[in-house]
Amino acid sequence: GSGGSNPAWGTILGETREPEDEILPRKDYESLDYDRCINEPHIEVLEGIDNKKAKKYEAIKWILVFAIGVSTGMVGLFVDFFVRLFNQLKFNVVGKSVEECSEKGCLALSLLELLAFNMTFVFIASLLVLIEPVAGGSGIPEIKSYLNGVKIPGIVRLRTFLCKAIGVLFAVSGGLFVGKEGPMIHSGAIVGAGLPQFQSITFRKIHFNFPYFRSDRDKRDFVSAGAAAGVAAAFGAPIGGTLFSLEEGSSFWNQALTWKVLFCSMSATFTLNFFRSGINFNKWGSFQLPGLLNFGEFKCSNGDKNCHLWTAVDLAFFVAMGFVGGLLGALFNCLNKRLSKYRMRNVHPKAKFMRVLESLLVSMVTTVVIFVASMTLGECRDLSSPTSNNTTSTQVTMVNSTIKQFFCPNKTYNDMATLFFNPQEVAINQLFHQDGTFSPVTLTIFFTLYFLLACWTYGVSVPSGLFVPSLLCGAAFGRLVANVLKINIGMDIYSGTFALIGAAAFLGGVVRMTISLTVILIESTNEITYGLPIMVTLMVAKWTGDFFNKGIYDIHIKLRGVPLLEWETEVEMDKLTASDIMEPNLTYVYPHTRIQSLVSILRTTVHHAFPVVTENRDNEKEFMKGNILISNNIRFKKSSVLTRAGEQRRRCQSMKSYPSSELRNVCDEQLGGQPAGDNQDILEQMLERR
Amino acid sequence: GSGGSNPAWGTILGETREPEDEILPRKDYESLDYDRCINEPHIEVLEGIDNKKAKKYEAIKWILVFAIGVSTGMVGLFVDFFVRLFNQLKFNVVGKSVEECSEKGCLALSLLELLAFNMTFVFIASLLVLIEPVAGGSGIPEIKSYLNGVKIPGIVRLRTFLCKAIGVLFAVSGGLFVGKEGPMIHSGAIVGAGLPQFQSITFRKIHFNFPYFRSDRDKRDFVSAGAAAGVAAAFGAPIGGTLFSLEEGSSFWNQALTWKVLFCSMSATFTLNFFRSGINFNKWGSFQLPGLLNFGEFKCSNGDKNCHLWTAVDLAFFVAMGFVGGLLGALFNCLNKRLSKYRMRNVHPKAKFMRVLESLLVSMVTTVVIFVASMTLGECRDLSSPTSNNTTSTQVTMVNSTIKQFFCPNKTYNDMATLFFNPQEVAINQLFHQDGTFSPVTLTIFFTLYFLLACWTYGVSVPSGLFVPSLLCGAAFGRLVANVLKINIGMDIYSGTFALIGAAAFLGGVVRMTISLTVILIESTNEITYGLPIMVTLMVAKWTGDFFNKGIYDIHIKLRGVPLLEWETEVEMDKLTASDIMEPNLTYVYPHTRIQSLVSILRTTVHHAFPVVTENRDNEKEFMKGNILISNNIRFKKSSVLTRAGEQRRRCQSMKSYPSSELRNVCDEQLGGQPAGDNQDILEQMLERR
Repeated sequence: GSGGSNPAWGTILGETREPEDEILPRKDYESLDYDRCINEPHIEVLEGIDNKKAKKYEAIKWILVFAIGVSTGMVGLFVDFFVRLFNQLKFNVVGKSVEECSEKGCLALSLLELLAFNMTFVFIASLLVLIEPVAGGSGIPEIKSYLNGVKIPGIVRLRTFLCKAIGVLFAVSGGLFVGKEGPMIHSGAIVGAGLPQFQSITFRKIHFNFPYFRSDRDKRDFVSAGAAAGVAAAFGAPIGGTLFSLEEGSSFWNQALTWKVLFCSMSATFTLNFFRSGINFNKWGSFQLPGLLNFGEFKCSNGDKNCHLWTAVDLAFFVAMGFVGGLLGALFNCLNKRLSKYRMRNVHPKAKFMRVLESLLVSMVTTVVIFVASMTLGECRDLSSPTSNNTTSTQVTMVNSTIKQFFCPNKTYNDMATLFFNPQEVAINQLFHQDGTFSPVTLTIFFTLYFLLACWTYGVSVPSGLFVPSLLCGAAFGRLVANVLKINIGMDIYSGTFALIGAAAFLGGVVRMTISLTVILIESTNEITYGLPIMVTLMVAKWTGDFFNKGIYDIHIKLRGVPLLEWETEVEMDKLTASDIMEPNLTYVYPHTRIQSLVSILRTTVHHAFPVVTENRDNEKEFMKGNILISNNIRFKKSSVLTRAGEQRRRCQSMKSYPSSELRNVCDEQLGGQPAGDNQDILEQMLERR
Repeated sequence: GSGGSNPAWGTILGETREPEDEILPRKDYESLDYDRCINEPHIEVLEGIDNKKAKKYEAIKWILVFAIGVSTGMVGLFVDFFVRLFNQLKFNVVGKSVEECSEKGCLALSLLELLAFNMTFVFIASLLVLIEPVAGGSGIPEIKSYLNGVKIPGIVRLRTFLCKAIGVLFAVSGGLFVGKEGPMIHSGAIVGAGLPQFQSITFRKIHFNFPYFRSDRDKRDFVSAGAAAGVAAAFGAPIGGTLFSLEEGSSFWNQALTWKVLFCSMSATFTLNFFRSGINFNKWGSFQLPGLLNFGEFKCSNGDKNCHLWTAVDLAFFVAMGFVGGLLGALFNCLNKRLSKYRMRNVHPKAKFMRVLESLLVSMVTTVVIFVASMTLGECRDLSSPTSNNTTSTQVTMVNSTIKQFFCPNKTYNDMATLFFNPQEVAINQLFHQDGTFSPVTLTIFFTLYFLLACWTYGVSVPSGLFVPSLLCGAAFGRLVANVLKINIGMDIYSGTFALIGAAAFLGGVVRMTISLTVILIESTNEITYGLPIMVTLMVAKWTGDFFNKGIYDIHIKLRGVPLLEWETEVEMDKLTASDIMEPNLTYVYPHTRIQSLVSILRTTVHHAFPVVTENRDNEKEFMKGNILISNNIRFKKSSVLTRAGEQRRRCQSMKSYPSSELRNVCDEQLGGQPAGDNQDILEQMLERR
């Protein structure tokens, strides 16, 4: 099965110790069987399918994508609920303590409280990743690999899911500069992979009779849907989610899938929306809180007729910002790549608790920086007076309710503390919508500290997304530009747009996603007219960044040695022929092979399929027999070698692991009522492990 | 070339006269060469390409898609400008006349005025389609065929473009129940196909030295981009446009294309937006009028805190409306199919001016219906009083500015005239946003008349889109449902949402598009939260409709006998093998063939490529030589037969018509400075005509 346990996992996470920069693809990744393998048993299956059966399959698929969407939405709800709870708890307790201590001068105590909260949370998150190392990081590189046909062991297992979802909750609550969006995507993908199976390797004793969708092809379709649902839940962006799956997993895109994936994404968004609106506003049945990350409403106040969100002139600045964002993103990626290599060489080979210690160190430094910066580096800025017009007041009230006043007189606020001493989503909304100003010095310091810490954090062994930190970092940069243009030059611009464009530029420079990121950002702002500026910015950022290095996800894919073939290949590759990349030393089997030989072949190789050759070597041209692989071979042998009790079951079991994975459905149906025996022989065990 | 003139065009438009329902694919459609054909000359080309050259190509492609986007936007601007101008003229003149005559009792004169306007406009539109018959209809079936690899002669020619763009302008101005959106898509596609060629068959004397992108593959990519730009300009929906190209043309989708297509769409939308905002509001540099079709802003008035655009309860009604919309759409398609068949049998075989007469008849009936219904069937309804809150007043003012007061006292309006005696876009906005009520009787009559007339109109020989009529028809249905629920049952609902959902349901039932239509509608409303209701409605409408018949575009594709292979095939097709569909009577050539034989083969067949066989028939297995097609053959023969003046040129000319279309670039480069000679021999002429 594709979720099989792999004892060699430790080596995959990163113990590659080559002195050169070049990290070669590892041999222990196998490709998934994403193309139909036509052979005799598969043709049998095909012939058994009529229109009625096909429609039933189709209906079950629709029900399953709906279930995946709803489940992913619920996962988002779960994560969001606890993050909010813990954040509220933490900031309330520490905030009160700060207010009290600012008079008494016991700020060190407040710091200790914050440290205690954060380090406990991060410790839990880090422990969970210790249990399942593949749950670390954002998960997007792994999902991208999976969707493009490379099997990374453990990536879609239930245990990974639990560690990821709970881990990210604690990592975010622990005040690390990480987002919950990447892990949401990974969680969604696991839901997509696991839910239609109705079984799990983690709970292998529990069996349901649901023998559908066992082939890699079907699984990948559901994983696409799940990943899209994850994006949809994270950003409230169902279309963006669909395009994310399309962009990242397009080597195997299936046109019939688009519509199902969009449905899945919509289900996820609106499940989350329904419950969050119900829980937060007690307005059940209304839909007011689309995604976990919400950019608020970009809107001119009604009084001002001349106000525009952006004009054609601003576009020139956006292009420049895209350029700078690309440069900053490339710098971020470069630093993070070096750091990751350092980690692979110096941290990973050591005992596992070293990774936990590193997480705790990051957590401590982050906490101290947050605290000290908030206390000492902020400036007091005037709060914007509520406008006479009562239109935008709800939004202004909401934004102003999250400012921090530390050490500042009334009607003013501490700008550094407002950014640092709040959850990241709140800080982003402050930068987008706060009518009051942020001091340029504050923004610069905030950007620098955040940039460095976020760069250090990505790669630490906790579940960690990159979207929110990048957006926040970029928003600070954008707001800085807006401040300079508005106050120093006196242009009539809308600051929020510049903050948004800054966020897009930096995020684009880091992740280098194209159409899906554009659409995700448009959907998050709920403002179609931002389409052009966001796209132009992302284009410039991507091209600038691509001049220096690859996107952060591609860098991490390469660091892991995943043999991912990009969609856009180098020109040189067009000139290659099949013979240039074929394996010269082929492992093959003869039509009459003993079980022992098979076992030893399976022991010494990691491949899933082997060609069957005839003994006649006179005519070299007929040496290999087209499509006949070992799965058929085992079938031929059934009467002679395997004709014992449970032979039929074994045949199916073994087929399960072979390219003709489409067969599994039939096999499972044939197995039907038979209970799974315990006396599996060596061959089966070997096959099972693949 | 792919735009070659085809004298047999008349027969393609519809003279199929089989007695059965089944219309067989016609032999005279050829498939486009959308896959790379690997052969010696192509390998030569490949080897000549290095990274620098590849980057230059890439840059040129980006510039071209930008140019396509801007041009398509300009086309939209042109059409929109004149439609507005003519409509204003017409409605001003006739409106004044009606007001004067309502006292004097000379309404017949007003009707004659309206008839004169409308029939003149429709006459021009119909004449243009007479010049280029393929310019008739919406063009979406043709573009869908083209994107999926079926070459329909004349579909992407400059003459078609001119007839289509100018024709649709007059058809819409002429008050026919047609939209300009479908033709916009077709126009965009032609811009995409033609602009990168820098030459045209219509103006074949004009030559530029721009020898790029001559292969079918490249052309198709640009056509995708152009079609997307058309959608983007029509609806202000760049993402929807991209997904439209993806959904309709996906058999050959290229991942690298997505980003370029989105860029092209954005360019189109914002070009149009820029100029329209500048011209209409004199605010150059702001972007306020996204697409030709604009749904206005769906927004609760600020005073009402309990107002929701939709709630979970409404979803049940939306599902029911989707079901009814699917039924109505299926009925529309069924009626239109019968009508089209009748036309093919009884109108098309007759003299061409019969088609013009039919258009004029439709125009006359439509005009009379509009006029009589407006004058006699309307009810006077109260105008909503401007709310005390000044927030939504701009929108209310705008909506109220387009009501028609015919024969009604002040502060009331004639509801039937408001719907019939306005441009269709205005009527849609009235149904979406008019706070005043429409009488249920009016809505029912309007829906019925509109449904029947729109059904009759689609297929008449004028350029005619279906989106706007379907939306208007559906909006009336939706508004009717809203009226019943709000007034008769007393539910607290937002009428505009129901009108929108009605529009989506009916349109979905007619065209059966899925993801692209969802996204187009979401983008047109600029309200992401409508995602779920729109999608659910479209899903139900599609499934309901699919139970009865196919979408209108697929019906027309089938009526034309285009051999289009759907993405989702019947289960039976999975069981077919290549041998089941292969041509048994193969036309082949020998390595040494005389020019006369080639000419006669080209005369008697419509194929583009022929296998070259060896004379040795002893060994059947070596009868056919893999990839060697006639294009190579001609190459081998060059020294013996064609070694005369201009041989090099001829070789290239002939290659142009063969599968290795990638070669054209090389050939054209080699041709370089040589002027095209006039003494082309028979072979070349034959080849040229393909």
